[in-house]
Amino acid sequence: VQENPFIDWLTRNQRTHPQVAVGIGDDAAILTPDARDAVISTDLICDGVHFQATACAPEQIGHKAMGVNLSDLAAMAAEPIAAFASLLVPSDTEQDYVQRLIDGMSRLAAEFDMTIAGGDTNTWCGLLAINVTVVGRLTSHGPLLRRGAQPGDVLLVTGSLGGSIQGHHLDFTPRVRESLYLIEHYNLSAGMDLSDGLAMDLRRLTNASGCGAEIVARQIPISRAAKRMAQSPEDEIERALGDGEDFELLLAVPPSEAVEILAKQPLDVPLIAIGHCTAGSELWLVDGAEKRPLPERGYEHGADDRQ
Amino acid sequence: VQENPFIDWLTRNQRTHPQVAVGIGDDAAILTPDARDAVISTDLICDGVHFQATACAPEQIGHKAMGVNLSDLAAMAAEPIAAFASLLVPSDTEQDYVQRLIDGMSRLAAEFDMTIAGGDTNTWCGLLAINVTVVGRLTSHGPLLRRGAQPGDVLLVTGSLGGSIQGHHLDFTPRVRESLYLIEHYNLSAGMDLSDGLAMDLRRLTNASGCGAEIVARQIPISRAAKRMAQSPEDEIERALGDGEDFELLLAVPPSEAVEILAKQPLDVPLIAIGHCTAGSELWLVDGAEKRPLPERGYEHGADDRQ
Repeated sequence: VQENPFIDWLTRNQRTHPQVAVGIGDDAAILTPDARDAVISTDLICDGVHFQATACAPEQIGHKAMGVNLSDLAAMAAEPIAAFASLLVPSDTEQDYVQRLIDGMSRLAAEFDMTIAGGDTNTWCGLLAINVTVVGRLTSHGPLLRRGAQPGDVLLVTGSLGGSIQGHHLDFTPRVRESLYLIEHYNLSAGMDLSDGLAMDLRRLTNASGCGAEIVARQIPISRAAKRMAQSPEDEIERALGDGEDFELLLAVPPSEAVEILAKQPLDVPLIAIGHCTAGSELWLVDGAEKRPLPERGYEHGADDRQ
Repeated sequence: VQENPFIDWLTRNQRTHPQVAVGIGDDAAILTPDARDAVISTDLICDGVHFQATACAPEQIGHKAMGVNLSDLAAMAAEPIAAFASLLVPSDTEQDYVQRLIDGMSRLAAEFDMTIAGGDTNTWCGLLAINVTVVGRLTSHGPLLRRGAQPGDVLLVTGSLGGSIQGHHLDFTPRVRESLYLIEHYNLSAGMDLSDGLAMDLRRLTNASGCGAEIVARQIPISRAAKRMAQSPEDEIERALGDGEDFELLLAVPPSEAVEILAKQPLDVPLIAIGHCTAGSELWLVDGAEKRPLPERGYEHGADDRQ
């Protein structure tokens, strides 16, 4: 266990947070509670699955390790407080590389006023992996849960979808500010972040809410990267439905709220209506005059499976 | 990201905890605060460093992954609430193996009334690694910190030390109950858990407290495993000072308290006085009539370094 370099650095560079009474330097961190609920999430990223260590900078890997966790706080509409990071690094890794990785993590944490309150570095004969646990707290507006969507609710997404592998997955900005703004100013029924592709994540939201949904192919905001990668218009939609790692927000909001949100466009990033929730439990994709079941894993595979 | 098997299992087997409002099944867990401070720690164990996957059962690995984190809560005198686990498993791992590993984790969590409130499984081409983050809360008696030891305080350890590699490191019971009992009934100046060997961890405690210490070689409780492994009486002490992964408690207590604790022996495990804190910052080992600097990494290496 070679935990000292990371801990030493964190000790020197520790940011204060009013709710972190004891950060680095003891056996654990102590967080002072306030009256609000705490939100906790943990996520691990590893070489060959979530990034290719040979094809990206260590700062990007650190950014992603922190970003995927901040995206989970955004998905709950929680304010970030503290992060805890475990690094697992190949034994031949240079200290400078580890430092740059930590820089990537800590820069994104600082952008969201979050302190890194614990961490360690383990050296081993395996590949690079990073686990981050984040702690946040709810605002007085409560959590944004996956359950709560009602038939008739409009489905909104932030930004554009698909093609994240072209670079977005390494430099995305987690939608923490957007989520907190929306829950403060609007009545949201349900929401989550898009990490495994719209098709799969929409099913999670509707399953949790006990409803179905109908989305409209031509309304889905397709990223420029997805368009560049696509072989055909159908392929563009497939990518937007199935690619994953968009780290955008998927929201279900009552129709009256949706009208106001869509007219006002209160965020720096576009909010687009892609369909609505329905009674029952099925998911449908409206594509021109055609309406067919939305495949589990996106457009193409589902089309193969179901038709 | 193949997160479903672990999450599915956790969803079916979820324990309730009065402070866990939302556990598995959304983007993050929600913990309801009470007036007490929260304690958070994270620790990762990996194949080839903290265990040899080919030489132990998956239940033992799960036990250790949870146990090292519970030991950190014990080190702070915090009551366990919730754990969050990330598994990183080789892609050829059988489902049954993963399930047995989860069983090992969840059995120990249950023993300490802790719920596993989040987790995911990632499959990759690398080796096995497990990260666990635990959340606890302080009692009304406050935290047990590394700082706070005073010159004159008696140094106590629970259990016996050294030779953990013979098996103890895979089946130890974290000293959560012992720590909570002691902080409730006695005035403790400082404390921590012993994870990197008495010599190194004692230095962490005295550094945090701004004091020195003097420990007596023949008073150090040496485990049967350390005695079996040792080549000589000196080697026994070296193992007790340097071996690591004892997961026992090291405490600094005022002399009057120490007298009471030692007379009463209130725990199921022995509490032994090994020395006392001193003014200054140096660590000394009294060995018969001789007194010499306590080496950083234990007995032997330090003797080489310093004499």
